Amino acid sequence: MNDFQEAILIVAASTINADMYYASRFLAPDPFIFLQKGARKWIAVSDLELDRARAQADVTEVLPLSRFSERLREQGSPEPGPVDLLAEILKELGINSLVVPASFGLELAESLRAGGYRVDFKKDPFWDERLRKSPEEISFLAQALRATEEVLALALETLRQCTIRDGLLYQGSQPLTAESLRRQIHHGLLDRDCVAEQTIVACGDQGCDPHEEGKGPLLPHQSIILDIFPRSLASRYHADITRTVVKGTPSDGLKKLFDGVIAAQEEAFSRIRAGVTGQEVHEAVSSCFERLGFKTGEVSGRRQGFFHGTGHGLGLDVHELPRLGKGGGPLEAGNVVTVEPGLYCPGIGGVRLEDVVVVREAGCENLTRAPKFLQL
Amino acid sequence: MNDFQEAILIVAASTINADMYYASRFLAPDPFIFLQKGARKWIAVSDLELDRARAQADVTEVLPLSRFSERLREQGSPEPGPVDLLAEILKELGINSLVVPASFGLELAESLRAGGYRVDFKKDPFWDERLRKSPEEISFLAQALRATEEVLALALETLRQCTIRDGLLYQGSQPLTAESLRRQIHHGLLDRDCVAEQTIVACGDQGCDPHEEGKGPLLPHQSIILDIFPRSLASRYHADITRTVVKGTPSDGLKKLFDGVIAAQEEAFSRIRAGVTGQEVHEAVSSCFERLGFKTGEVSGRRQGFFHGTGHGLGLDVHELPRLGKGGGPLEAGNVVTVEPGLYCPGIGGVRLEDVVVVREAGCENLTRAPKFLQL
Repeated sequence: MNDFQEAILIVAASTINADMYYASRFLAPDPFIFLQKGARKWIAVSDLELDRARAQADVTEVLPLSRFSERLREQGSPEPGPVDLLAEILKELGINSLVVPASFGLELAESLRAGGYRVDFKKDPFWDERLRKSPEEISFLAQALRATEEVLALALETLRQCTIRDGLLYQGSQPLTAESLRRQIHHGLLDRDCVAEQTIVACGDQGCDPHEEGKGPLLPHQSIILDIFPRSLASRYHADITRTVVKGTPSDGLKKLFDGVIAAQEEAFSRIRAGVTGQEVHEAVSSCFERLGFKTGEVSGRRQGFFHGTGHGLGLDVHELPRLGKGGGPLEAGNVVTVEPGLYCPGIGGVRLEDVVVVREAGCENLTRAPKFLQL
Repeated sequence: MNDFQEAILIVAASTINADMYYASRFLAPDPFIFLQKGARKWIAVSDLELDRARAQADVTEVLPLSRFSERLREQGSPEPGPVDLLAEILKELGINSLVVPASFGLELAESLRAGGYRVDFKKDPFWDERLRKSPEEISFLAQALRATEEVLALALETLRQCTIRDGLLYQGSQPLTAESLRRQIHHGLLDRDCVAEQTIVACGDQGCDPHEEGKGPLLPHQSIILDIFPRSLASRYHADITRTVVKGTPSDGLKKLFDGVIAAQEEAFSRIRAGVTGQEVHEAVSSCFERLGFKTGEVSGRRQGFFHGTGHGLGLDVHELPRLGKGGGPLEAGNVVTVEPGLYCPGIGGVRLEDVVVVREAGCENLTRAPKFLQL
């Protein structure tokens, strides 16, 4: 070939690589090959996945890897490796220059270059259009949120029904633990074809570490952070909701944290619209907390105040672009982001509230409907 | 620095990268940095993960990324990026040469090289010792298998209790579907702190596509393949069990397939021991099927017979090395592999049986205890 034939190449398992799933709409647990030249798209899969790929993948053609391995064997290569197969496919498709994701594997990139192919990576986001959600994608996100809100309501009802005895919360005759409530949440999600891991049920000071999942008995009169971020098995899009509640009587300190977080979240909602940067939204939230007298910094070796980002993009990945935080660039209409300010104060507790919003030209649309209240 | 200071570097999220979890024993959903020089290990994490990392990670020291970003800001770099931070860490640790996994991201590798670092990848497996399971790892795998066997037994009991009516299986007043039985299995796994996706419940000809999850009503007198491969949330090790059953009366054709798969699996068990190659085991299974008269090939455009590998390594990943299949190298004592021959014959059905075995010097030890029978 004399002309320069550029194509997009991804090699990944679509169960863990959302760019691959977005490109192919084919879900497979082992790495496969995706190629795109202009409007034409191909995936190449093993015989094991062939029937399923032909039925499900949204591509121009599904190529059986065995066709290329047989051809190479006929040409005298007894056990062709992945790079040989890929090179044979590229030859058939007339491709000699490749654009790959920033995360593309170093070994495969170097092997292709050694074989004479040009390989350039594209910085994230690989698919710019993944950031601008279509109406269909927004409906998938909303469906996942509805399911998650139902399960959140069940969890809150469980807490509401608990009795306070001996400084513990009892569900029937058993002290209710973070582990048990998490499991009840996961069962509720399963019933709605959603699957979650690492759901946060963090009571009291446990909640002051924002990624602590929480363990042991849940306590009355203390903050309980519930942060639930399942994937819908049908659409593969995520929900992400956080609420903070107290079963019993919250301290004045906790009430102040809660009101502060409500105010900071409202501040973010009022700022978010196309053209504003994620950094500006985050700075507005930080300033709001400072204005209200909540200081961020280290006290006796533990961080307190507001020390994480304001939010992140949500879609096929639970954390994706754009970022509402330091370095976050301009928002675009169709972005879907979480808005999750929090205040963490060892000795008082942790409070975080998280909604999911769509960025619009003139403002933002909150997709989350779960009510916000502190006391159960 | 004048001397050549080589270190291992991984940058990945340990929730989806088992090499990272194996190295750090720290579970985090966002990418972080792992470095190892000799016996000393570090991870570098954001402030958000700092407390949790210090409590959980199995490393010499947890480095706060903020320490390095603050230092760079003091030096006049207002918003240091990931590569700047990594370079600052490498400077502090006196490292200028890096060994990274084959899957290491191209962008980061090129940025490091542009910054004067030497970056070489190591072919898979990155951690050779991941292939030789320790007694503790084998006990984790066995625990996951026990939980999965309990859930399998519940699923089989559900099928056993079904009544056959109008050519369907009824659980109470409802026809039992693949979706419903899959959901019951997932609930049972959750109760045992295991989580599964893509569990296969494939009836009749659906089971002839080995990765088809299965859908719609389950039918009497037809093969039902149950392939369950959850992760234990506590240990992060997997189970992987397949059984094939018929509720009602299996055809003679199905019985022949079942007996053939039993024989082929026994053939594999008798071959597996340290020193034998995965390819030899696979060829023995294929020959066994041929000897018994089961042909593999395409019939009217659909593959039938035995057209997938015999098994795969099992551990922190559900598919890992070594392979029992084409190109599979010598087995070592301590390898843990699935043994899952199958026969697929459109019009008759699909049969697959899968156990998990430990490779020993003189043979193999079957970790799976679930009984094998075709008819319920």
